[in-house]
This record gives sequence, C-alpha cells and structure tokens, in this order.
Amino acid sequence: MAEERLPLGVAARLSRYLQILTQAKKTGKHTISSKTLSEYSNVNPTQIRRDLSSFGKFGKRGVGYNVDYLIARIKEILHTSGSHNLALMGSGNLGTAIASSKIFADHGFNIAALFDADPAKIGQEVGSLRVQPVTEVAETVRERGIIVGVLAVPPHAAQEAANVLVSAGVKIIFNYTEALVDAPPGITVHSMSPAGELLYALYFYLT
Amino acid sequence: MAEERLPLGVAARLSRYLQILTQAKKTGKHTISSKTLSEYSNVNPTQIRRDLSSFGKFGKRGVGYNVDYLIARIKEILHTSGSHNLALMGSGNLGTAIASSKIFADHGFNIAALFDADPAKIGQEVGSLRVQPVTEVAETVRERGIIVGVLAVPPHAAQEAANVLVSAGVKIIFNYTEALVDAPPGITVHSMSPAGELLYALYFYLT
Repeated sequence: MAEERLPLGVAARLSRYLQILTQAKKTGKHTISSKTLSEYSNVNPTQIRRDLSSFGKFGKRGVGYNVDYLIARIKEILHTSGSHNLALMGSGNLGTAIASSKIFADHGFNIAALFDADPAKIGQEVGSLRVQPVTEVAETVRERGIIVGVLAVPPHAAQEAANVLVSAGVKIIFNYTEALVDAPPGITVHSMSPAGELLYALYFYLT
Repeated sequence: MAEERLPLGVAARLSRYLQILTQAKKTGKHTISSKTLSEYSNVNPTQIRRDLSSFGKFGKRGVGYNVDYLIARIKEILHTSGSHNLALMGSGNLGTAIASSKIFADHGFNIAALFDADPAKIGQEVGSLRVQPVTEVAETVRERGIIVGVLAVPPHAAQEAANVLVSAGVKIIFNYTEALVDAPPGITVHSMSPAGELLYALYFYLT
C-alpha cells in the first residue's frame, strides 16, 4: 500500500517533538506528558494529542507517553531512522560551534566534512574534522553521499557557498546566515531566522 | 478601539516576512513579489497574499510589494518598531558568532551585555562588548532594561543560565542550545531546533 505524504504542518511538528523527546531521553526521562511536550514545543496540548493519536495509541492517560516508544514510532513515520552525512561550510566561530555541538549528531546527522575558503584555515583541525579547501567539495560530496549542506559562512559568502554545494549534488541547504539564498528548483533551502522568531516572541510579550 | 491580538500563526509568518524583507532591502531590492517571498519563507503565495491583504492594500499585481512600505507596516502591526536590549550568555564560539553577527541588530535587537561563567573569559573583548561575570547579570538587566536573554552556553549550563536571567527579570529566553530549558509561567522560552528542522526538510526530500 502506497503511503501518503504527511501534511507539511504535521511533519514539522513531529520533527519538533522528536527533537524534544531525544533531549528528554538524554536527561533520563522515560515518560513525557502532552503538557510537557507542549511547554517545550509551544504547540498546544490538544494539537499534540491529535497529531500523535492519528498514528495509533501512544499515550496513557495520567502516565504520559513512553519516550523510547514515541521516538521509535516518529522516526519510523518520518523515515529518518538512518544516518546522514552533512557538509559544513565555514570554520569560523559559528562553524566551530556547530562542529563541536551534538545538536545534529543526536539525530543521526554526521558532520562528515568541513570546508573553508580561507587558505589560512585549510588543514586546521576542528574537533575530529580537518578543514578542507572548497575545491574538494564536489569530490567529497560524491564520495560520502552527502545530501545536506550547512552554511556557516559570513553572509556575503552564503550564496557562493550554496552554489558550490548545489553543483556538487547537495539537495538540502541549511542556512545559518541571515543572507537570503537562492537555489534552483528541487533544492530545499531552510534558513534559520532567529531574529524573526525573536520578533514573534516579543510581539506576544508586548501585546 | 482596542486592538485584537494576532493569531499565533499570523504573527509568526509576519515576523518571518519582516526578516526576509529586511534582508531584501539590504541587498538593494525595492519591490518583492509574493512568489519570491514564498521561496524565501517556505509559505505558499496564497497564504502570503491573504496574510498581507488583511492589513490593507499592499501589493500591485505584476509589480509586487513595496519593500520599504511593507517593512514599516509590518513593524507597526507587530509593535516592534522600537529597539530592544539583549543579554547574551556565553562567550564561546557560538556566543562570539552571535555577538559578531548583524542577525539581531538588523531588527532592532541590540546585544547590550555578554556574560560568561568562566573567570578566564571575564574582561575579554568580543566586538564592542566586554565579557562580564554572571554575578553582574541582575544589575545589568535592571540598568539596561533588558527583557530578552540569549543562551549560547554549553547544554549542561543552559538551565542554570536561564535561571539567572529569569531571576534578573528577563521575560523572553532565546535558547540556542539543544538542552530543554524550563521556566516559570509568564516566561517565554524559544528554542532553536536546527536538528528538528533538518529532519523535516529531510522527510520531504526522502518521501
């Protein structure tokens, strides 16, 4: 039976729940209530119960959801049980922070390569990675089966870095810079927008 | 006439449009189409036109929206024309990247203070900021009228840093770490979830 693709909103929320559940598990939690999930995700509890109930009986009233079971089930639904290699562009403060963090590793994203355009940075070690020149992007992306590229370069260099990744075959660009990045059809660009999210939080505080 | 609060979704999208428009303006764009806004925001053009049309006649068919006018109008609607001081916790790679970036400044958020728990970091200069000890958070937050705190500390230190900010009177916590952070009622915690967003992008690529 062919499976239907989840609606955008559902997939976004399930991804967010999965991230929270993974962190909850790390801090030793075995169960989690929809109220707690709501507090961490800013999604209302009714919506959470609806999202989760549509995939079968997950929770027990008064006990909450089993964290391990829910993680496994959401991973199955999202088809994201596997491990994926990332290419990270930029070995400055931001790139180093990302390379040193477990924020991606916890979700099966392995930072497989780190590139920088600055000749002075090439060959330096950042964690377990060695900074590679941008001229090696194409070969590395092909060899390591990389489909996700992360931009941690200065904003003025973001579009060029994205172009290099797309030419190499990357399908998803995760843009940490504030620059607007264009990509051809079929390539997904996901931009972090901390300022946008902060404006939003501020609106609800001020009104 | 009392103004009604915008629904959550509308406020979130307007904040996102504002961030994109601000970047578009920086790159010299005077007009922008709903199609372009859609590509950068991942919101569909019909939704964008609906969001914007409810606040009056913004766009011209075939010409697009006037960027300056739309920025001014959304700022007015979101009550975010003012300038706001932020406190940044953590002067490591991530904190330094945030302090060096214009990602917040472009939206009227001024990083007014930078704190670190590491005695070796105190007094160091990061951009135009001097790293202050955590013991100065309360006084600085009061003196500078700070309502937003940004967490750029290691995950194990996130909750403690949040507690310090909340005790000092901060109302909005912007959490860059992957740790789950609890806060008392009335305090908004907004967590960046790059891994969650990446899972979501991957789902649509894989299915």
